[in-house]
Amino acid sequence: MTEKKGPDPFFSLALSQLDELYAIGGGPGANRPGLSAAEEEAHHLVECWMQDAGLETSRDAVGNLYGRLRGRRPELGEIWCGSHLDTVPSGGKFDGALGVIGSLAAVSGLEQGDRTVAVVAFRDEEGWRFGRGFFGSRAATGQLPPDAYDLADREGVTVRDALEQLGYGASDPASAPVDLPAVFLELHIEQGPVLAGRSAPVGIVESIVGLVELDVVFEGKAGHAGTTPMADRRDAALCAAAFQLEIADAARAIENAVATVGVISVEPGASNVIPRVARLVVDARAPDDDRVADLERRIRDAAERCAEAYGCTAEMGEGARTHAVLTDPAVKATATTAANGAPALPSGAGHDAQILGMAGVPVGMVFARSLAGGVSHSPLEDTSAEDVGIAIGVLQRALAELASAP
Amino acid sequence: MTEKKGPDPFFSLALSQLDELYAIGGGPGANRPGLSAAEEEAHHLVECWMQDAGLETSRDAVGNLYGRLRGRRPELGEIWCGSHLDTVPSGGKFDGALGVIGSLAAVSGLEQGDRTVAVVAFRDEEGWRFGRGFFGSRAATGQLPPDAYDLADREGVTVRDALEQLGYGASDPASAPVDLPAVFLELHIEQGPVLAGRSAPVGIVESIVGLVELDVVFEGKAGHAGTTPMADRRDAALCAAAFQLEIADAARAIENAVATVGVISVEPGASNVIPRVARLVVDARAPDDDRVADLERRIRDAAERCAEAYGCTAEMGEGARTHAVLTDPAVKATATTAANGAPALPSGAGHDAQILGMAGVPVGMVFARSLAGGVSHSPLEDTSAEDVGIAIGVLQRALAELASAP
Repeated sequence: MTEKKGPDPFFSLALSQLDELYAIGGGPGANRPGLSAAEEEAHHLVECWMQDAGLETSRDAVGNLYGRLRGRRPELGEIWCGSHLDTVPSGGKFDGALGVIGSLAAVSGLEQGDRTVAVVAFRDEEGWRFGRGFFGSRAATGQLPPDAYDLADREGVTVRDALEQLGYGASDPASAPVDLPAVFLELHIEQGPVLAGRSAPVGIVESIVGLVELDVVFEGKAGHAGTTPMADRRDAALCAAAFQLEIADAARAIENAVATVGVISVEPGASNVIPRVARLVVDARAPDDDRVADLERRIRDAAERCAEAYGCTAEMGEGARTHAVLTDPAVKATATTAANGAPALPSGAGHDAQILGMAGVPVGMVFARSLAGGVSHSPLEDTSAEDVGIAIGVLQRALAELASAP
Repeated sequence: MTEKKGPDPFFSLALSQLDELYAIGGGPGANRPGLSAAEEEAHHLVECWMQDAGLETSRDAVGNLYGRLRGRRPELGEIWCGSHLDTVPSGGKFDGALGVIGSLAAVSGLEQGDRTVAVVAFRDEEGWRFGRGFFGSRAATGQLPPDAYDLADREGVTVRDALEQLGYGASDPASAPVDLPAVFLELHIEQGPVLAGRSAPVGIVESIVGLVELDVVFEGKAGHAGTTPMADRRDAALCAAAFQLEIADAARAIENAVATVGVISVEPGASNVIPRVARLVVDARAPDDDRVADLERRIRDAAERCAEAYGCTAEMGEGARTHAVLTDPAVKATATTAANGAPALPSGAGHDAQILGMAGVPVGMVFARSLAGGVSHSPLEDTSAEDVGIAIGVLQRALAELASAP
């Protein structure tokens, strides 16, 4: 039995690989923006480690990395595991990286099954550089919008430029999709306090939140900060401030909903000039699509109301939108059995598994318990070495079962 | 009589010089940051124009430019006129430039008097690049704080670096002061609606507002935008938003006070990360020092209150502080006579004249009527060619009188 073998020979290797990835790009924290040289370095390292583990590696048109343990019956759909290797600025050690490295450790200890098992590292899941998340998984599943390659980072480098610089040849989003697997099972750090609260080293995800990301631009009128009376102002930054407070209230009014403004800029950006323009990105989430729709409606209403009150105009574009996704009951059951009955929980974060689920792939997720109160997207993000080992074991047992199933 | 000669021969030249300065640095609007290559180019052009007009040019240790029409009696204190040549990003055509170019036109038409008359172009009045205003006039009058050369712009270039790159040799703020004049008379666009409301082409300033600029940093806790419940957040950007609304209310509660947040940044600045840090610059002004002190107290209280409410810390540094200044009664009377009884008005904007006034120099200011509702710090800033001509005439008559006085 594969399970008997356990992940032990690969466990300490996985821990040192996590350290090695964490050191890329300099501190504090992890700094591997999507489609950057630092993310590329991580992909290159993991490709080498995959080859060391005897996996057959390949990359697709946008640079997603695959390491395959071929099955005896190539006509059967593949079983994928993995996650992403990019990070937010000053991110944590485990977000994304644990899923790839833990999957590699699990597959390293697997014997050949009926189905091919692949470890996958998707590109630019976080989306902070170009403003949209899940680039690699959307590309692989044919869900990129037509303008996906035209998005630019703060230096004006587009996704297309970045892909070219890295040597990936996808000339347009339509050329990116690949053959999809029969199952995608993603390991990820929980990034929340639930498992710690239940003293459970791992949990099995039952649903992944729906998310809508809205670009909001308020435009008022520039003016001299000293000579324009308060009553005559059309201050876009003040309008944005009122909007921020309103959408926080809107999220509080909906159970388990959250709304965050993590990106703000004002123009022209001088201390003695009343801002003419304020640009915000709103990240709004809720456990199901109805609540997401309710939240989005309240946010759009708040933007109109604030613009009216402050003599500004409001323009609302739209970035990423992911639907709430339920994990596949059979995959969930297999993972739960592999974990000896670990608790089920919802995911408040979006994940590549969600994108594959939206594309019709049966998905499952294993969460490893977070320490430090569940803080994530921060160097304080943590999980214990013991929990990493347990999660690898659970993943390995589940993959062995999935790879042997007809 | 000098007055009879009028500014006419130099008026159309002044208009074309204003156009030429406006084209430096590219559009939209004027773009000549303090101590930049664009400001240097403006200083170089004006130096050539001063020499064409027969003035004796020199620069001081920080690059302030002087063009002198020598008087018959060098033992008498000089009469200075002028303003600055730097601008905010996307600034207007007249803010600063009108004062220098209009003064040059006025002095070009002057005959030699008893006193030396100098056209002065001060450096970096706006302060948006390094975060503090009035650099050149503070340097010339010995009012720079000890750390003035250590301030850095967004690229990390310090004032010291910028001075060195431009070839100015002032190794520390203490070496910058120059001999001060007997009078400084500054011409400036009003940047407000008062003169237009009174159908007056020019006005004579009676007081200049007091200003305090406060750097505010709120620090909370970063976290994942999807997995951190609203109730558990310490969102620095939300704290800053509440603060912005409170200080706007504080300014509205004090007659003729204003408070503006024109600079905002959040860290880490990713759409799916709750901001850990929010940095703001508050520009607070009022017509006299008591009201400035009241406003500052309310702003500091608001920062503490918001930090407490949002689980953040508040740190308040301090940038520029200028005291409210009354113009000199005799200079004001001379300018008013030269303008045939133009209305007196307060200045809601700070000016280099204020800095010279704080150093004990008797100062006066002539305002040219603003069009477009008084909008300034914007490409929409405007004043009519006719008003420019009238202002030059007023300035010339006043300078002739001041230069001949004992």
